Amino acid sequence: MSDFIQLVKERRSAMNFLPNQPIHPEELNEMFELVKLAPSAFNLQHTNYIAVTDPTTKDQLKEAAYGQYKVSSASAVILVLGDKKAYEQAAEIYSGLQLLGILNKQEYDFMVNDTVTFYESRGSEFQREEAIRNASLSAMLFMLIAKEKGWDTCPMIGFDPEKVKQILNIDDQHEVVMMMTIGKEKISSRQPRGYRKPVSEFVQFI
Amino acid sequence: MSDFIQLVKERRSAMNFLPNQPIHPEELNEMFELVKLAPSAFNLQHTNYIAVTDPTTKDQLKEAAYGQYKVSSASAVILVLGDKKAYEQAAEIYSGLQLLGILNKQEYDFMVNDTVTFYESRGSEFQREEAIRNASLSAMLFMLIAKEKGWDTCPMIGFDPEKVKQILNIDDQHEVVMMMTIGKEKISSRQPRGYRKPVSEFVQFI
Repeated sequence: MSDFIQLVKERRSAMNFLPNQPIHPEELNEMFELVKLAPSAFNLQHTNYIAVTDPTTKDQLKEAAYGQYKVSSASAVILVLGDKKAYEQAAEIYSGLQLLGILNKQEYDFMVNDTVTFYESRGSEFQREEAIRNASLSAMLFMLIAKEKGWDTCPMIGFDPEKVKQILNIDDQHEVVMMMTIGKEKISSRQPRGYRKPVSEFVQFI
Repeated sequence: MSDFIQLVKERRSAMNFLPNQPIHPEELNEMFELVKLAPSAFNLQHTNYIAVTDPTTKDQLKEAAYGQYKVSSASAVILVLGDKKAYEQAAEIYSGLQLLGILNKQEYDFMVNDTVTFYESRGSEFQREEAIRNASLSAMLFMLIAKEKGWDTCPMIGFDPEKVKQILNIDDQHEVVMMMTIGKEKISSRQPRGYRKPVSEFVQFI
């Protein structure tokens, strides 16, 4: 399966995009059909996405991202949100396992209770971290899937989260975990890949 | 490149592993050689890994994971750490760009200062979140790479982070973002893939 390795090597954070490269919602939908296979803690699927192609909203998001040009030239701007209260959906998400007969009523009740108790006992800071952790797992998968479908991405953290929440009417239950621009990379603006530390500097074996 | 899509579909969180399936550090090294291509904010490479195959340490980690059996049967237990002070390495990480002539001295100084100021001004909570966010991006890539190399993984959050820090002598600069077990999945224990929400429930188009 060498194609996967090639994909990993070819995926780069795009520093700039070719303008006027519209992306069709249907194409994004196809990507999200695969993104949903990302793992999440307790299968709670904490991640939500807002995909913005509307020019006016994109302009507002550019401003919230301190005027970064790639927010304009990108075909879409995608906000990755994490749901801090994802565990409240445990009963609904696990109900299928009971319907399929994989869990009996007692096991189902135990599983729902176990999940909810875990999140409630660890408190709001942990719930926020879980939103960030799980949404980031999903976002990485999204970037690879986009590349596979012929699109380039750039994960971004340089934006004002409060402004983004205002622009997109995002409630306090959701954390704005990341902004991702997606488009066709302007290859002529490309720089060599940034330096990477050798494995021995970031991995320890015990 | 359909192999990638196949890989995404085949990757599952392994609920159990076949015992006595040793993994060689060289195999893990090969995986990390690809993991280093993961994106990170400002290319700061916040992620560190500890790969544990030592049986005694694995037993201790099992205890820190509330006795979960898969920690024993897995070939290795991998801790994913996030460095909260990764931005302090900006000068070192960007120095190559200056050496290569991609940045002049003034641009280099600006870039280093810009990164450090960004993290310092946003404070310690943000630094912690960045550790979680970037380490999670890396962890997702690791799980796909492991699958490509014929290994199964399970990302885990059910452990006592303080105990893990004690066992592995992890300092306060590093956040224990995730535990990942890796091994050969015991297919006979496999359950159907958990329910996934339809795209329309987690994606909004604007």
